[in-house]
Amino acid sequence: MSTIIHKYGGTSIGSIEKIKSVAKKIILEKEKGNDVVVVVSAMGKTTNKLVDLAKEISSNPDKREFDVLLSTGEQISISLLAIAIKSLGYDAISFTGYQVGIKTKGIHTKSEIDDIDTDRIKENLEQGKIVIIAGFQGINEDGDITTLGRGGSDTTAVSLAASLGCKCVIYTDVEGIYPVDPKFYPNAKKLDYISYKEMIEMARLGAGVMETTSVETGYRKNVLIYVTSSSKDTKGTYITENKNTINYKPITGIAIDDNTSILTIKNILSKSNDTSTILEILSNNNLEIKMINEVASDDEYSNLSFIVSKGDLGCVDKAMEEIKLKINCVEVCKDLDVSTISVVSKDINYNVINKIFNILKKDNIEFKQVFTSELSISFIVDNKYKQRFIELLGSEFNL
Amino acid sequence: MSTIIHKYGGTSIGSIEKIKSVAKKIILEKEKGNDVVVVVSAMGKTTNKLVDLAKEISSNPDKREFDVLLSTGEQISISLLAIAIKSLGYDAISFTGYQVGIKTKGIHTKSEIDDIDTDRIKENLEQGKIVIIAGFQGINEDGDITTLGRGGSDTTAVSLAASLGCKCVIYTDVEGIYPVDPKFYPNAKKLDYISYKEMIEMARLGAGVMETTSVETGYRKNVLIYVTSSSKDTKGTYITENKNTINYKPITGIAIDDNTSILTIKNILSKSNDTSTILEILSNNNLEIKMINEVASDDEYSNLSFIVSKGDLGCVDKAMEEIKLKINCVEVCKDLDVSTISVVSKDINYNVINKIFNILKKDNIEFKQVFTSELSISFIVDNKYKQRFIELLGSEFNL
Repeated sequence: MSTIIHKYGGTSIGSIEKIKSVAKKIILEKEKGNDVVVVVSAMGKTTNKLVDLAKEISSNPDKREFDVLLSTGEQISISLLAIAIKSLGYDAISFTGYQVGIKTKGIHTKSEIDDIDTDRIKENLEQGKIVIIAGFQGINEDGDITTLGRGGSDTTAVSLAASLGCKCVIYTDVEGIYPVDPKFYPNAKKLDYISYKEMIEMARLGAGVMETTSVETGYRKNVLIYVTSSSKDTKGTYITENKNTINYKPITGIAIDDNTSILTIKNILSKSNDTSTILEILSNNNLEIKMINEVASDDEYSNLSFIVSKGDLGCVDKAMEEIKLKINCVEVCKDLDVSTISVVSKDINYNVINKIFNILKKDNIEFKQVFTSELSISFIVDNKYKQRFIELLGSEFNL
Repeated sequence: MSTIIHKYGGTSIGSIEKIKSVAKKIILEKEKGNDVVVVVSAMGKTTNKLVDLAKEISSNPDKREFDVLLSTGEQISISLLAIAIKSLGYDAISFTGYQVGIKTKGIHTKSEIDDIDTDRIKENLEQGKIVIIAGFQGINEDGDITTLGRGGSDTTAVSLAASLGCKCVIYTDVEGIYPVDPKFYPNAKKLDYISYKEMIEMARLGAGVMETTSVETGYRKNVLIYVTSSSKDTKGTYITENKNTINYKPITGIAIDDNTSILTIKNILSKSNDTSTILEILSNNNLEIKMINEVASDDEYSNLSFIVSKGDLGCVDKAMEEIKLKINCVEVCKDLDVSTISVVSKDINYNVINKIFNILKKDNIEFKQVFTSELSISFIVDNKYKQRFIELLGSEFNL
């Protein structure tokens, strides 16, 4: 008898029918003789609806209270799932983050799990119960409710797996990890295995399925993660470090980030403090900048380019007003119709780069920016080139 | 500087606009120099929606998990209200039942408040914060979330007022306590004062505004309760025991209970154990019976009448099937088109009773059952007589 974690995302439990079918899936696992711990997200669009309620009151709702609000979403899910399992004749018990001792540190809405007290979980597993835990939430040292930010339920699941020393199955609305999103490249072949580091790089660059924090937690604590479909009975993808099982293709995959916009500030006096003034204003407005690029346009002036999330454009407008007030003559351009296409590889060598640039040249695909990291090379392209570029990369590297 | 409790029901905070206006009302109280503790219910129909979700899964959802589910409604309210107050520049902090130490005993969905630890409330009031507390919920000795049943938020508010030794203002969608519901008798004159015992009797017999448990808590712990409108700036009603302030009209008021149905089982053999068999079956089906009346129809047979809530008719049908299986020949009649009209008085004397029966006689109003208690006399009448009977009582007793 071993313990296993099941994690179900919002889409997988997006309706009462889906909750009932998830209950049956969990019972099947229990029937195999395993102790089952389940972590769930909020149902479907519940979190978005709660966010909208708060935003109707204040554009910048108090973060402590925002966490109190958001945490109700998962609490609804755990109770409904427990009711469903019990109505099928199996014993189950639900716990919120604070009830099961998920202690967090850091700031509200972006807290980190510090410690998990597994006593209550183990005690209930020993009594033969299926234990259902609210993802995404915890409690800080002041006794306040906290949430973990994007992908928080995955982080809860992986952290629990680390504390209980067991495997973590992430049930989701896709069949596993693909080298490139099948939405853009239908021929994409699902991966059987991917290493933590490659997965983190893919996630960081916008490949959907999982967020970086949860995979990083798995990496640090060596948790075997299995990503698979909650609705279909197909093979999924293992995220692990076992060298023998890692694929040896030249590139791991392609990450596509639609949530990209380029912001360019032109005519900045090169020999002034204007650049630092601009950066200070952006930082005061809590803008998360993905990349900065400064290019001299001539001896006197330079242009500053930023890549920011489309979701941050509200803050961007506010910051731009402040910048124009402080610095005369600057001109601001926004370019929203772009995407970031990143090629992820354990080994970004000359051969890989050469192939990519050949594709760009042969097909007259223009890119606006290019940047690299240890495991990736990223291109910002106009959306009109996006689909073609992805198809050519997919076919060239046999993804 | 004194402490005051404000309690807002679901209708008073049924929309974002209403939450914003309640926030302003609370700030006004704070500006008067008072320490304010606010208790809120779930917004509008939230609780009903959560109940429906659970019922979609199971007709008899597990009660522990049902409490986990229902308690989210108030948690949403407290966070949104705190966000609203903070966005207006005043400091506020929200607490769920467990966070503020509302300890309960008894069974799930109908728990009772056992003890309240007010340290955290006092500490936050001393820091100048407006403290917002989720009504209707607590935590039991196992650390499980519990709820208090119907009118639970009022009970939370009154219990907190008892623990903090302060006044409790119940803001609601009516302007105060009326001797008779103005919906049926528009001339009704709002009461300035009503005693706990009269209010409990009115509540027990179905007069809306408050449930018995909260008023009983106020009675036992001598809490001054003030019931008033959340939207209008009019005088409300004090519930108290101060003799000088109690009205000395012959009758306190009329309670109207639409939620009445009569169930009659005919042809029961008088010299059998059938009556006790029937009562056992009704009790096994968790039927809450408001009154039982057994009348011999002749030497051999008798009829048994019960008054039950319309909401319990589902259980009634199930119980009737069982009764018919066990006892042959019995005949079951349901009478749904009836209401209970109760006259509440501190002193049900001959003079009062005489006046009521004169009304019934003069206007040919037939009643199906009559029953009395220390403080009331109740008539079950066909709904066709209801409105006329109420009007005549209202005018006769100058309500």
